[in-house]
Amino acid sequence: YIARILVRVKKSFWKYYGEKIGIYFAWLGFYTEMLSYAAVVGLLCFIYGVATFDENVWSKEICNDTIGGQIVMCPLCDKKCGYWKLSTTCSSSWQSYLFDNTATVFFAIFMGIWVTLFLEFWKRRQARLEYEWDLVDFEEEQQQLQLRPEYETKCTHRRLNRVTQISLIIACIIGVIAYRLAVFAAFASIMKDSPTNKLDVVGTLITPQFATSVTASCINFVIIMILNFLYEHVAIKITDMEVPKTHVEYENKLTVKMFLFQFVNYYSSCFYVAFFKGKFVGYPGDYAYMFGKWRNEECEPGGCLIELTTQLVIVMVGKQVWGNIQEALVPWLRNWWVSRSARNHPESLYSRWEQDHDLQTFSQLGLFYEYLEMVIQFGFITLFVASFPLAPLLALMNNILEVRVDAWKFTTQFRRPVAAKAHSIGAWDEILNMIAVFSVVTNAFIVSFTSDMIPRLVYKYAYHLGSESTMEGYINNSLSIFNISEIPVENRPEEGENPDWFYSSNITTCRYRDYRYPPGHEKQYTHTMQFWHILAAKLAFIIIMEHVVFVVKFFVAWLIPDVPSDVKARTKREHYLIQEYLHDYELEKLKIQLSQNGPNIEPCTCPATAATSVKLEVFSDCLS
Amino acid sequence: YIARILVRVKKSFWKYYGEKIGIYFAWLGFYTEMLSYAAVVGLLCFIYGVATFDENVWSKEICNDTIGGQIVMCPLCDKKCGYWKLSTTCSSSWQSYLFDNTATVFFAIFMGIWVTLFLEFWKRRQARLEYEWDLVDFEEEQQQLQLRPEYETKCTHRRLNRVTQISLIIACIIGVIAYRLAVFAAFASIMKDSPTNKLDVVGTLITPQFATSVTASCINFVIIMILNFLYEHVAIKITDMEVPKTHVEYENKLTVKMFLFQFVNYYSSCFYVAFFKGKFVGYPGDYAYMFGKWRNEECEPGGCLIELTTQLVIVMVGKQVWGNIQEALVPWLRNWWVSRSARNHPESLYSRWEQDHDLQTFSQLGLFYEYLEMVIQFGFITLFVASFPLAPLLALMNNILEVRVDAWKFTTQFRRPVAAKAHSIGAWDEILNMIAVFSVVTNAFIVSFTSDMIPRLVYKYAYHLGSESTMEGYINNSLSIFNISEIPVENRPEEGENPDWFYSSNITTCRYRDYRYPPGHEKQYTHTMQFWHILAAKLAFIIIMEHVVFVVKFFVAWLIPDVPSDVKARTKREHYLIQEYLHDYELEKLKIQLSQNGPNIEPCTCPATAATSVKLEVFSDCLS
Repeated sequence: YIARILVRVKKSFWKYYGEKIGIYFAWLGFYTEMLSYAAVVGLLCFIYGVATFDENVWSKEICNDTIGGQIVMCPLCDKKCGYWKLSTTCSSSWQSYLFDNTATVFFAIFMGIWVTLFLEFWKRRQARLEYEWDLVDFEEEQQQLQLRPEYETKCTHRRLNRVTQISLIIACIIGVIAYRLAVFAAFASIMKDSPTNKLDVVGTLITPQFATSVTASCINFVIIMILNFLYEHVAIKITDMEVPKTHVEYENKLTVKMFLFQFVNYYSSCFYVAFFKGKFVGYPGDYAYMFGKWRNEECEPGGCLIELTTQLVIVMVGKQVWGNIQEALVPWLRNWWVSRSARNHPESLYSRWEQDHDLQTFSQLGLFYEYLEMVIQFGFITLFVASFPLAPLLALMNNILEVRVDAWKFTTQFRRPVAAKAHSIGAWDEILNMIAVFSVVTNAFIVSFTSDMIPRLVYKYAYHLGSESTMEGYINNSLSIFNISEIPVENRPEEGENPDWFYSSNITTCRYRDYRYPPGHEKQYTHTMQFWHILAAKLAFIIIMEHVVFVVKFFVAWLIPDVPSDVKARTKREHYLIQEYLHDYELEKLKIQLSQNGPNIEPCTCPATAATSVKLEVFSDCLS
Repeated sequence: YIARILVRVKKSFWKYYGEKIGIYFAWLGFYTEMLSYAAVVGLLCFIYGVATFDENVWSKEICNDTIGGQIVMCPLCDKKCGYWKLSTTCSSSWQSYLFDNTATVFFAIFMGIWVTLFLEFWKRRQARLEYEWDLVDFEEEQQQLQLRPEYETKCTHRRLNRVTQISLIIACIIGVIAYRLAVFAAFASIMKDSPTNKLDVVGTLITPQFATSVTASCINFVIIMILNFLYEHVAIKITDMEVPKTHVEYENKLTVKMFLFQFVNYYSSCFYVAFFKGKFVGYPGDYAYMFGKWRNEECEPGGCLIELTTQLVIVMVGKQVWGNIQEALVPWLRNWWVSRSARNHPESLYSRWEQDHDLQTFSQLGLFYEYLEMVIQFGFITLFVASFPLAPLLALMNNILEVRVDAWKFTTQFRRPVAAKAHSIGAWDEILNMIAVFSVVTNAFIVSFTSDMIPRLVYKYAYHLGSESTMEGYINNSLSIFNISEIPVENRPEEGENPDWFYSSNITTCRYRDYRYPPGHEKQYTHTMQFWHILAAKLAFIIIMEHVVFVVKFFVAWLIPDVPSDVKARTKREHYLIQEYLHDYELEKLKIQLSQNGPNIEPCTCPATAATSVKLEVFSDCLS
């Protein structure tokens, strides 16, 4: 049904707005169509998680008073954090199981291949459109030859050379990342001050940790939104500095920069949570400090994956809601404002043409932002899909709305733009390909390093207790022991930070997430064999997953021809017909000339030769 | 200097033989040119190995009577092999150091990037040639439209569908691999029967092991050569079964198949030695058996890398020498035979045209074999370069000869072929790209799994004896202990297979290459922590190397524009000029027609529109 709408929208848009806008809707339609498949599979994976809910023994153990209730964990931060009981993470561990099970691994691999299919089939669709819209031999020469006025006027003799530009961009990006992370970390740490004591009223399902990370993510999102405005201007500035020669060049250059900036802006926090937070924390004896000052954050007790999921959901949903509101509301308000004066016109006539004139002008970059929005979304559903299988579903719901909003906006809120030709989605295609490749890597790393999948499997098959492989005792096995008395003073929690039960009971050891020898062992606090075993397994998983997925990708891409065979055949046939037509035509002409035997016999059959590469539509004009 | 020859050869060949042969020599020239850089760096790496010869402590320890002389190794095969002293591998361990040192790692990475540069710069060179040879807008339409007679006659209604074809090819390939490996393994095992006793006369430098692997490789090479003939016919048969429509299609299809077959034929033994031999042998207690019958081969005592190197050198050099002889000699002999009758002609006149007529006909596939030869060579110098840095040098020497031989052959031994157009090296480009990507993977695996690099480094920095990191004691550390009395009867060497010293001394334990707990340990014969540590390091190395090299590859490929800017500018300018010219020309024509006001006023400016995409050379004809 969706597909049908979209086809209709697409066709009408092509007719009314020309190819450039037409192809955007064609792409959006196709993307949404493909999304629906991913969404269904994602939903199934989620359902699998729900169905096998009872099987996650480790959550039960965490919630069990005799196991999780007895395990005292070491403080998560210096001074401000107290000792805490593992059982407090009960509900968040249940939540995280929904996204951290074998189905997720399958889904990560599935998406890797889905992306390939999406790109390959889009190529075919594009080729077909090219044929249907008579763009087969349209080279963007016209645009490429016409120079931008800015270029002709401003172009100084010494232009910035490529290297300078690139280094400039890289510098910007690094700056962006640094700033984002700093802000993110700062807020996170502020939020985290002794979480275990605050917010306990909120109840069991929304644990304090959960509340914390949600709040942090929200703030993070607000900052992203604010920064976006800034980056936009930076990107445009740099592109202007380059003084590109043609409009096409300008747009492509801007596209790449804009995308890079938005990419780091939106994703950096997700990357941080996924791959750095809680990875290099050290152990109670000597914690790792950034610049010798800030102690590296640990993940929330619930684990890193659930945190990544929260992060992702909030940024993604927030972005989409905000995006739609902004897109729809802003032009509407502007128009309302502009037309205000006209509406209360003395002799209340407000003619059609006046109304149309008062509409928003369709900026050159209008379409660009639409693409950007979609590509960023594409990034969210591919890069981090291993942490949240429902992402495609969210994207799908957004897009069904998006198509409508865009259609409404273009038709009612903007002046009709000048139709422009385009036979592809331009630089975006390349960017999508890059994301596709990159996503395989990120997902492989998420599964092996962010989620607890691999350690669990290794435990189940190599270190399980008893004869048959089971998950029982995993929690106890996955936590190392530390002697409280050996914790350096500067790391110890301040007075009153600890919960009351801590003082009442005399506890000598606390546990932490790592695989190190217990105190008293001759190699105490050094990594155990299990640690190296698990590390090897994680790395092996990355290698296997990447190679398998990439081989399949290449094979699929090679198997699916870029141009549908019937389209290819038709184009060939038309080329042939043209040659035939033109040959006859030239013959006719020469005959006539010879018959009249005038002084002006063409000495040259150049047009005939020339005409061999003329197009059918051109020729049909002649016939009329 | 080489470059200059080649440019000259290239140009002349283009003029005399047309683009298709011209571009082959252009490519060959460019390839040889780029090879020279790789050869130099490879040579430097080799020299580094020679220079740091004294630093490999482990070889010294092996040769040392008090260390290597005292270590008794477990038998390498069942029954037929006896116990042997580690010191017997003295010289081969020295040899292997030449190729198994840090410089090799560097070279492997270097080659990964060299390949990218080669392909990128070739794209540019090709674009320039296209421009210089006026092929910019030449589409292979002509060839693509003309059908093969075989197609028109033989084309039945039910053609084999794609899947059937592919599965057929895959089946063939698997068959090829299976057969090759079977033969290879068989010969290897025959050669290996109690190596330590035979051939000891040969002296120290050419150890029995070395002699063995050399002989095995030679036999292997002979088999390859024999099989090639067979595969050739199979490939052609399958392609005929497909009944491709056009000549271009036919050639491309054949290219891919032929390459795949030759690829597996030449490389399978190298892959076997590099990645399977000696990897899954188990340990003296329970050895791994293939199909429960054949015990998996262990590497020669000298290690797998040196064996791979021998394998590679013999196959590669043999192929090249054989190739050149065949290419040069066969046509020469044929011609000599054909012209024999003519030479002893009664009235001894043997006119030029007769001589030319008697020359070999240049077959459609002639060029194809030239490419195939070079691409297979390209595979040797990229896929396994981590095991033999001198490969590029050998290839370079071969190519300098090759250019000459080919030139001589084409000019003197064949009839002048009909000139054909071509603006690229066709399907080969894709194949080269695939090899380039693949080579990064193979080299990463060779370094971490075939060579001893990683275990040494891990030992040096994690498990070394004493305070400062050193290689001393590595040999002893890298060998596990096994209790002879626990070796199953069926694995024990038969009477008389053991050397005399074995009987004289009463030995209770033997050593084998692995990291397992010694007998008596509570986890005896299970993997030690060091094993998992090393495995993690190996896998980490693969991940790091692959990701680094690929990122660099992508970045370089993105940085280097495919078409040189000046070429781009010129083409644009010419397009513009053409339009101008043709516009004026059409104008003139119309003026004349109007002036005479004849009945035949063209109602249509079609040619004008058509002419906008006419080419300069076409137009210049008109002007004449």
